[in-house]
Amino acid sequence: MKKPLGSKTKIQVWVVENSQVRSHPDQLAIEEPLEIRLSPKQTVAVTMRTPGADFDLTAGFLYSEGIVSNRKDIWRMTYCSEVDSEQNYNTINVALREGLLPDLQRLERHFFTTSACGVCGKASIEALQLRGCSAISTDIKVSAELIYSLPDKLRAAQGIFTATGGLHAAALFDAQGQLLKLREDVGRHNALDKLVGSAMLADEVPLSDRIVMVSGRSSFEILQKCLTAKVPIVCAVSAPSSLAVTLAREFGITLIGFLRGQKFNVYSGFERIYA
Amino acid sequence: MKKPLGSKTKIQVWVVENSQVRSHPDQLAIEEPLEIRLSPKQTVAVTMRTPGADFDLTAGFLYSEGIVSNRKDIWRMTYCSEVDSEQNYNTINVALREGLLPDLQRLERHFFTTSACGVCGKASIEALQLRGCSAISTDIKVSAELIYSLPDKLRAAQGIFTATGGLHAAALFDAQGQLLKLREDVGRHNALDKLVGSAMLADEVPLSDRIVMVSGRSSFEILQKCLTAKVPIVCAVSAPSSLAVTLAREFGITLIGFLRGQKFNVYSGFERIYA
Repeated sequence: MKKPLGSKTKIQVWVVENSQVRSHPDQLAIEEPLEIRLSPKQTVAVTMRTPGADFDLTAGFLYSEGIVSNRKDIWRMTYCSEVDSEQNYNTINVALREGLLPDLQRLERHFFTTSACGVCGKASIEALQLRGCSAISTDIKVSAELIYSLPDKLRAAQGIFTATGGLHAAALFDAQGQLLKLREDVGRHNALDKLVGSAMLADEVPLSDRIVMVSGRSSFEILQKCLTAKVPIVCAVSAPSSLAVTLAREFGITLIGFLRGQKFNVYSGFERIYA
Repeated sequence: MKKPLGSKTKIQVWVVENSQVRSHPDQLAIEEPLEIRLSPKQTVAVTMRTPGADFDLTAGFLYSEGIVSNRKDIWRMTYCSEVDSEQNYNTINVALREGLLPDLQRLERHFFTTSACGVCGKASIEALQLRGCSAISTDIKVSAELIYSLPDKLRAAQGIFTATGGLHAAALFDAQGQLLKLREDVGRHNALDKLVGSAMLADEVPLSDRIVMVSGRSSFEILQKCLTAKVPIVCAVSAPSSLAVTLAREFGITLIGFLRGQKFNVYSGFERIYA
């Protein structure tokens, strides 16, 4: 079998600082799907995770969901070995102790049956193409100065955060940097669903001349939601995952991370930014 | 119908700062489940969210999952009205445009059928009791000084974070504050599953004399995982949600938030901390 997946990867990014631009190597945390299966061939979870400690993750998931109650309930965990491929390291087959019949109804995550091994980041991207998602083509260009100004505007509009210190936010800006909408939630994905849903209900999608900014990190799922709404520029306060960058590059989304003060990194679509 | 749920709530917490203790009112972001149903009575998602903009959230979820492609695909969205209860505001019934037959196979979240309205934070807590979770009873007591020391130890051990700036961590400490294990992941829940799973596989559960610390916030799901492993003290760098506090109080977990420098808040189980 090929060697297991790593936890981080190196890519070249554009660093914009005080309107100076330089190319710089940067390390990203890897994000890849992990499929957990109970024999025979029953998938109980697919989660986006960073490779490493995959058996710990599987055991912890089954334990916290109440499927197993101690280590003896797990007879064996193995990576999928159907074909000689890296993506085998994204599927774990669990054999439970003989006679253990877990109450799978109780499982509150998605839950379906499949056959061959085969989840991987590449397949996740291809699934979006099959769904009809295509590359974003738009003439929008914005200045570094405009990008610098977004975090302060987002924070100023974040009412519940100010009170509780505990909420994620997603904000929609026009190409002049004016804040149009902001939504908050304990969950990052929910905040973005609220924002995009609000635009969709107001018949404002596609958002081809808009900018989205999220608090926190950017993941595959964040980028997937922006792609659905055709958002050309996505900014985040913190780091992107590897799969967020792959998705952004594949579909022509400008992806900005570590946006703080007069500085940010551009991971994809640098042609939409001018200094 | 009763009035809709708010987005924040006020509670009394203990603030420990430089070994001085005071009681202080604090605001929490509310976390409650939202169930999204397509008629007739088919649940497509249950997500933990902050109440507010619930129709936006529902529309955005259906849009980003590819179930609807514009606002005309949604004929009507209404809160459940089966009984006169606050929890009706946790269930939204969606009627799709006549003739629209969405490909529900594609949905990658959990997906099941139920009948009556009825998800709410209280039901989520009761579900844990039905599963056999009971209050945590243990003699562990730790000093404020020990709690102050945890974030630096966690950060020092966080290898991938240092390289990428992009990972969550969960760490296990003994009652003397020594770091025993640390796991990292792009997802907060995955980092904790890895940590607890590792302990479970090593036959170290229940973790009744241990402390868990997570980067980021604490949510219902974080506390639920700690409860399964019987962790008596849970610390987080940022804020807890309302439902995290409810769970901690119901099951006797000491919950600490905003742990930074020589200061932290205690939301539950203050009797295990001495100044």
